[in-house]
Amino acid sequence: MSHPLSLHPDRLFPADPAVREVARELYASVKDLPIISPHGHVPPVWIADDLEFHDPVSLLLTPDHYVTRLLHADGVSLATLGVPPGGDYLSEDQARAAWRVFCGRWPLFYGTPMKYWTEAVLAEVFGVDVRPSEQTADAIYDVIAAAIATKAYRPRALMDRFDIEFMATTDDPCDDLAHHDKLARDRSFHHRVVPTFRPDRYLEPGRAEWAGLVARLGEVAGEDTSTYAGWIAAMENRRAYFAAHGAVSSDHSHSDVNTTALTRDEAERVYGRALRGQASSSQAKGLQQTMLFEQARMASEDGLTMTLHPAVFRNHHTPTHQRYGADVGADIPLSVEFTRALQPMLDAFGVQPNFTLVVFTIDETVYSRELAPLAGFYPSMYVGVPWWFIDAPDAIRRFLEAVSESAGFSRTSGFIDDTRAFLSIPARHDMSRRMDCGHLARLVVEHRLDVDEAAQVAHDLVASNPRKVFHV
Amino acid sequence: MSHPLSLHPDRLFPADPAVREVARELYASVKDLPIISPHGHVPPVWIADDLEFHDPVSLLLTPDHYVTRLLHADGVSLATLGVPPGGDYLSEDQARAAWRVFCGRWPLFYGTPMKYWTEAVLAEVFGVDVRPSEQTADAIYDVIAAAIATKAYRPRALMDRFDIEFMATTDDPCDDLAHHDKLARDRSFHHRVVPTFRPDRYLEPGRAEWAGLVARLGEVAGEDTSTYAGWIAAMENRRAYFAAHGAVSSDHSHSDVNTTALTRDEAERVYGRALRGQASSSQAKGLQQTMLFEQARMASEDGLTMTLHPAVFRNHHTPTHQRYGADVGADIPLSVEFTRALQPMLDAFGVQPNFTLVVFTIDETVYSRELAPLAGFYPSMYVGVPWWFIDAPDAIRRFLEAVSESAGFSRTSGFIDDTRAFLSIPARHDMSRRMDCGHLARLVVEHRLDVDEAAQVAHDLVASNPRKVFHV
Amino acid sequence: MSHPLSLHPDRLFPADPAVREVARELYASVKDLPIISPHGHVPPVWIADDLEFHDPVSLLLTPDHYVTRLLHADGVSLATLGVPPGGDYLSEDQARAAWRVFCGRWPLFYGTPMKYWTEAVLAEVFGVDVRPSEQTADAIYDVIAAAIATKAYRPRALMDRFDIEFMATTDDPCDDLAHHDKLARDRSFHHRVVPTFRPDRYLEPGRAEWAGLVARLGEVAGEDTSTYAGWIAAMENRRAYFAAHGAVSSDHSHSDVNTTALTRDEAERVYGRALRGQASSSQAKGLQQTMLFEQARMASEDGLTMTLHPAVFRNHHTPTHQRYGADVGADIPLSVEFTRALQPMLDAFGVQPNFTLVVFTIDETVYSRELAPLAGFYPSMYVGVPWWFIDAPDAIRRFLEAVSESAGFSRTSGFIDDTRAFLSIPARHDMSRRMDCGHLARLVVEHRLDVDEAAQVAHDLVASNPRKVFHV
Repeated sequence: MSHPLSLHPDRLFPADPAVREVARELYASVKDLPIISPHGHVPPVWIADDLEFHDPVSLLLTPDHYVTRLLHADGVSLATLGVPPGGDYLSEDQARAAWRVFCGRWPLFYGTPMKYWTEAVLAEVFGVDVRPSEQTADAIYDVIAAAIATKAYRPRALMDRFDIEFMATTDDPCDDLAHHDKLARDRSFHHRVVPTFRPDRYLEPGRAEWAGLVARLGEVAGEDTSTYAGWIAAMENRRAYFAAHGAVSSDHSHSDVNTTALTRDEAERVYGRALRGQASSSQAKGLQQTMLFEQARMASEDGLTMTLHPAVFRNHHTPTHQRYGADVGADIPLSVEFTRALQPMLDAFGVQPNFTLVVFTIDETVYSRELAPLAGFYPSMYVGVPWWFIDAPDAIRRFLEAVSESAGFSRTSGFIDDTRAFLSIPARHDMSRRMDCGHLARLVVEHRLDVDEAAQVAHDLVASNPRKVFHV
Repeated sequence: MSHPLSLHPDRLFPADPAVREVARELYASVKDLPIISPHGHVPPVWIADDLEFHDPVSLLLTPDHYVTRLLHADGVSLATLGVPPGGDYLSEDQARAAWRVFCGRWPLFYGTPMKYWTEAVLAEVFGVDVRPSEQTADAIYDVIAAAIATKAYRPRALMDRFDIEFMATTDDPCDDLAHHDKLARDRSFHHRVVPTFRPDRYLEPGRAEWAGLVARLGEVAGEDTSTYAGWIAAMENRRAYFAAHGAVSSDHSHSDVNTTALTRDEAERVYGRALRGQASSSQAKGLQQTMLFEQARMASEDGLTMTLHPAVFRNHHTPTHQRYGADVGADIPLSVEFTRALQPMLDAFGVQPNFTLVVFTIDETVYSRELAPLAGFYPSMYVGVPWWFIDAPDAIRRFLEAVSESAGFSRTSGFIDDTRAFLSIPARHDMSRRMDCGHLARLVVEHRLDVDEAAQVAHDLVASNPRKVFHV
Repeated sequence: MSHPLSLHPDRLFPADPAVREVARELYASVKDLPIISPHGHVPPVWIADDLEFHDPVSLLLTPDHYVTRLLHADGVSLATLGVPPGGDYLSEDQARAAWRVFCGRWPLFYGTPMKYWTEAVLAEVFGVDVRPSEQTADAIYDVIAAAIATKAYRPRALMDRFDIEFMATTDDPCDDLAHHDKLARDRSFHHRVVPTFRPDRYLEPGRAEWAGLVARLGEVAGEDTSTYAGWIAAMENRRAYFAAHGAVSSDHSHSDVNTTALTRDEAERVYGRALRGQASSSQAKGLQQTMLFEQARMASEDGLTMTLHPAVFRNHHTPTHQRYGADVGADIPLSVEFTRALQPMLDAFGVQPNFTLVVFTIDETVYSRELAPLAGFYPSMYVGVPWWFIDAPDAIRRFLEAVSESAGFSRTSGFIDDTRAFLSIPARHDMSRRMDCGHLARLVVEHRLDVDEAAQVAHDLVASNPRKVFHV
């Protein structure tokens, strides 16, 4: 016997009937607004070449480390699931077996947004109407496989269907952005797909491969990166290149966010030592912080919004890293401090009209303690929505409650899906809209907002805030 | 078209009808109790001289850094809003313009207690019945301006109207307390307005102006403060002076709360070095911690309740500090640690019958982890209600949930408004009473408290706890 | 006039009628499942010798530091309450006086689980139907005293009545486990009562008595513990002894959980120094961390589940410790870090099939930030339920919300009562079942789970998870 699968129109709305009624009303006013996705990880080649998806597993399972990590915790080998993504495809037998493992262990995902997103993808995108299970796995696989062989399931058709007005990808500073170029020149393509400048590796002199990276950066930029001044020039050059190709932001994810800068002379000296492999780890860190500060300075001039996603212990399990590489679900959050760490940056650029900073966190303790107070004073700073492990309904509710009481709603970024799971993008934005409306509806029923005030906020969170924060 | 403004009788009560019904019943039993305000920042001269308020902006906008900071974040110059308070008044044109900016950007405050308090002040204190907006700004300005020109809106009349039984101000140890004296001698004045001993500056040898401050302290106290022993004598002298003028507490707000004390000999040595400007920053900090410990020792003897408000990075934005001075909205909270930091103080005085300590925090993580466990053991210690950035409905709910499960309700301070926004004092206390009752009502409906038990707690939180904790 | 006392069948269920209806249905399916208690502190001699309880105070009040600490905070001397437990019994007059103090100060416990548990014990175990108060204290005392003089209130009869299928005690590595032996050999006893290996003292070379402890360990184990190799052999020997006597886990509670291990040579060197009292405090700490790592290695071989209960400042108030000893309510939680601290242990054993780790915390900030992400990747690791100060309804709700969105429900430990309050064990497990069902019911009404999915989770949390995690 298989259980039916359907999406209830009231899903994620608060239980209380009065609150739910207001939530429905607010949601009706925003549910059909186009999607603005200012930060994500969809490969631009998918859209540029309108690639056909290969099979259900490489599309939905292998690249989604939210999903594969929980299967791993339950004893499933990552290799079984086709990890690492980007390697060889699983054979059809292997893919079907992986899909059966996923569907057979479906209860692992109860209570998680992975269940919520997957159900939305299955029901809304593919029309599946049975719950995943060992028994239904093959039938669901067949439905998806048949669908993705059709034109209607190519990336560009889905961009239309999903009504994605704006989508940012994440790209290396040395990338030539050919895919973005192709899209920009294509008059038949009516969405904006822009790159994001993500220079982390070039800012971490502690990495073994760093000297090679900055040499390559120099080549691409046509600058001599044997000096710190050259590194700056090369970075400015590549940021300008990205801006010219439509980029609206740069993204930065280091393990901490200290922005205390060395003097220019010290920076030059340490830079030279680092190139020669002679910098101590504390010197390397000092230079990294200086470089991050310098990115803020550049942002205050070129106007690219700066986003921070710090404080993750990458590749926590060495054997997994050695076998499968990075980004396979073995990254673990760390606690983070912003008040002291960001002070130098905000002291210098926090009221610069051209500087925009969005700070994301997985450490929820900073929302009420640090991020809302900072964003409630500095015109340049916004609080990013919950990120990664906390991109989930109850965590979004906690975020809204923690931030809005001191900073209101105007100081938040609007929703960012941050995903490589292309097909779940509509469900992720819809989740956010539902949670926003549920939160606002409670404020209405508690007589803290009038319903028209709540409707304005709901609209701002979906449409106005991301346009303002990311200059869309 | 302007929107009506009215205060719903059920505001802030939980949505669930059964919980709301109980909340109404509990609230009815406490809503008319007199206000006890054991910690705040109203200038005593206002009451002593029954000063007429100058204009709506200098009364409601300029001094309220909760409000001005969000306007600043939205791009409004603080100067436009008359900041810093206490300087020249804005001209009427400027004041009207500032008021229009505030009303025109009213949506910034959606979801914040600033909206809640302002609406209460407008509707309840001034009878305004339209929502602030650019269109209604002038009309609202006129209503307020007309009202404050009348006797009924002088501070003393408002003290009567607000039913403020007890109010503490915050005062420098060198203050002669003449205003408090005048009030105490005035037989026509039927409220208690008492000073609070706030000696922070004299406990921070790392400050450039510290030597001058302790010299002045010595003069005022008639003690020779060239030695640490003299500093202690001077402090004891001034605390006694404050106690004789009605003070019930001392207040302390340093960036950390470590209370490890130097030996007396070390303290004397470092004190001498600090006076000569020769103390290292770690020595200065060690002396500061010793002085804080010493204040606890004095408190255990003179019985002044000691309140701690630590862990704020003051004047986070240097250019703002240079231009506008302190207390203009650029202070940002820090994480804080109490278990280890307070151990020396509590080891020495935690069970002293005459010692009372109230600990406040903006870092919510310490409520369930440190403050409730500490206050649930030490008879001398109480958990302060949410402070500053978290003095808001949802944060109050989180506080109640985090603290009461391990420490009950008897170990909390009762509400403290901590405000310089005199006109919003009733709304702040009312907010707290509503949130307490909503929380207790939920416990009733979840069958965790009987309704008579909840009613007793509601009364204690408003009346008994603050009287007990502050010896009112 | 006395107030009635009764337990409402809907107690602890959420207020919303629709959610409550689903909660009732879910709860009905799990409420009668037998109790599995894989970690607790009931003295095994009680069960082995089926000891008669002495009096109401020594049974219910004296040993319960959750209760005595709040009375202490309210000004009651611990001596009045018979603390320390295990000393002489109070005389009947003293015991009645202590009971009167407890009942007379009953409102201290409003809002706490101590109220909830006590009410359940009074009403369900003893049939008391009046609320504790000064007036009812003696009558309640009489009811309890009369009951515990009967056979039906002996530990073994209560084990039957409470339907405790499995119960772990906590025991010193040198314990001969004679009580457990007696129970295992008793064919008339149909419950499993097993020991838990708790070696903390032997892993803390910084303790003054450590050298004596490891010497004793060596004697009991028949190993020469004058070397680190000998210490390891002795530990392995005693772990095997415990396992042979039914133990399913070892338990570890140090102030931090860093698991960075010294090399074997360094460890041997430091061990020697520590035995001679010559190890520095940082060396002692390094050795402690090495020993903890070593326990994980042993666990990965002998299969005893490893539980961590870290980050408590023990005996925070020195005078109380000197007068009353340990475990009397003066322990205060500390903040804790797991991502970095556990990395060495998880890197080495996190995917070992035979290793099982359960991590408990009082610092709630780590649930969404560290523990759920870790347990959502490592097959060996589970998140323990709320512990000690946060073993309470609202905290359990926060835990469920914080952990399940990223790790689901399969990565949690199931409920652990961790108590020495034997009579409250059913009420504690019932509290947990009610909170689980209330949480799941909300997910159902928010259309995040179907009701059959929720029912499966409810059953897993009570029955499957603890059996799996503790190999019961």
